Amino acid sequence: MTPSQAAPPYRATDRTVPTRVRERASHDRELVHSILDETSVCHLGFVRDGAPVVLPTLYGRVGDVLYVHGSTGSRPLRMAGQADRGLEVCLTVTHVDGLVLARSAFHHSINYRSVVVHGTARQVTDPEEKRTALDALVDHVVPGRSSDSRPANAKELAATAVLRLDLDEVSAKVRTGGPGDDPEDLALPYWTGVVPVVRGYGAPVAADDLDPSVPLPAYLSAL
Amino acid sequence: MTPSQAAPPYRATDRTVPTRVRERASHDRELVHSILDETSVCHLGFVRDGAPVVLPTLYGRVGDVLYVHGSTGSRPLRMAGQADRGLEVCLTVTHVDGLVLARSAFHHSINYRSVVVHGTARQVTDPEEKRTALDALVDHVVPGRSSDSRPANAKELAATAVLRLDLDEVSAKVRTGGPGDDPEDLALPYWTGVVPVVRGYGAPVAADDLDPSVPLPAYLSAL
Repeated sequence: MTPSQAAPPYRATDRTVPTRVRERASHDRELVHSILDETSVCHLGFVRDGAPVVLPTLYGRVGDVLYVHGSTGSRPLRMAGQADRGLEVCLTVTHVDGLVLARSAFHHSINYRSVVVHGTARQVTDPEEKRTALDALVDHVVPGRSSDSRPANAKELAATAVLRLDLDEVSAKVRTGGPGDDPEDLALPYWTGVVPVVRGYGAPVAADDLDPSVPLPAYLSAL
Repeated sequence: MTPSQAAPPYRATDRTVPTRVRERASHDRELVHSILDETSVCHLGFVRDGAPVVLPTLYGRVGDVLYVHGSTGSRPLRMAGQADRGLEVCLTVTHVDGLVLARSAFHHSINYRSVVVHGTARQVTDPEEKRTALDALVDHVVPGRSSDSRPANAKELAATAVLRLDLDEVSAKVRTGGPGDDPEDLALPYWTGVVPVVRGYGAPVAADDLDPSVPLPAYLSAL
């Protein structure tokens, strides 16, 4: 890729430059997207009655926009809809890649890749964007699935609220590699290294009431 | 277990009884502990300058107390230390167990087990409790590891801040089972079922500078 084609990094702000271990932080757009696209569950934080709330929830991505959804009756969705100015959120996605076992307890760590997004989530009111967002949410769980399921009908659309969060104030943080023991500890007689954490999919389990003539789609056997 | 020996459930509060899908929520103490003990990374939420912040971090558990730690220079640790009344947090742990593919886009879901803890985190100042907490943090990553590594020395202890969060206002939420399609969708020609999400460990990778005469400990080969 020539430099002119490279996606520009996200801007650095006070909230997205860590106070510590800065070399692990990045604003690289492609790195951020790759971390976001590897799973479909994030942890969404918001403030209710002055106190923090962190809930796991599904999300989808369309370019530089994330979408989360929920019942129109759920608390964060109601809060974002009530407030004209939206709901301030922090959306975080983390992959744990390895357990880092140093000789010293102090240098034990985790290999991980995380993305933290700060911003204001706003309810999506445009029907076209809402449909696009819901497709993105389903396709984020399993790519290709939205076109192989029944789309939401009018009643379901009305019961579902979608929040939009622009990727603007966002950063990634990555730790890789082995333990970082101090020189004076290198001769200690403890095993040291990394235990990889692996994540994958088991064989799909068909629902009891699935018509046996319906084949397993290629996008699932390829997972 | 006889009823008299059963651990009592956590109390239900406004914050730990969901407004929706209440049948998925539980205050069962053993269920909460089992979810907490299955991983070592949580998402810790707090409020900074009025806005939510959610960061992944390691935690340990000792009975009904959780511990998180960090550099004395890190922002949440500094905030908890500065404020005499501690730092209001929400600590959330989530396991994704399966992708639930319904015939309708609307009924797509995730099988998961999560725990949400609300409370005030306070800096641990007692040296004995601090040591216990740090051992618990290491043992939460790999059971048995704290006694097979060099304990923190005085300088490391001074550089590490530990926060204590009592398990009091806490709940679990669990979704299991297959898709819940509406009766009128049962004949639609889409594959439906659950794709299990599996998580495990790869073979431990020794550090380059490990003395080859140091054997892999049993607590690691048993992972």
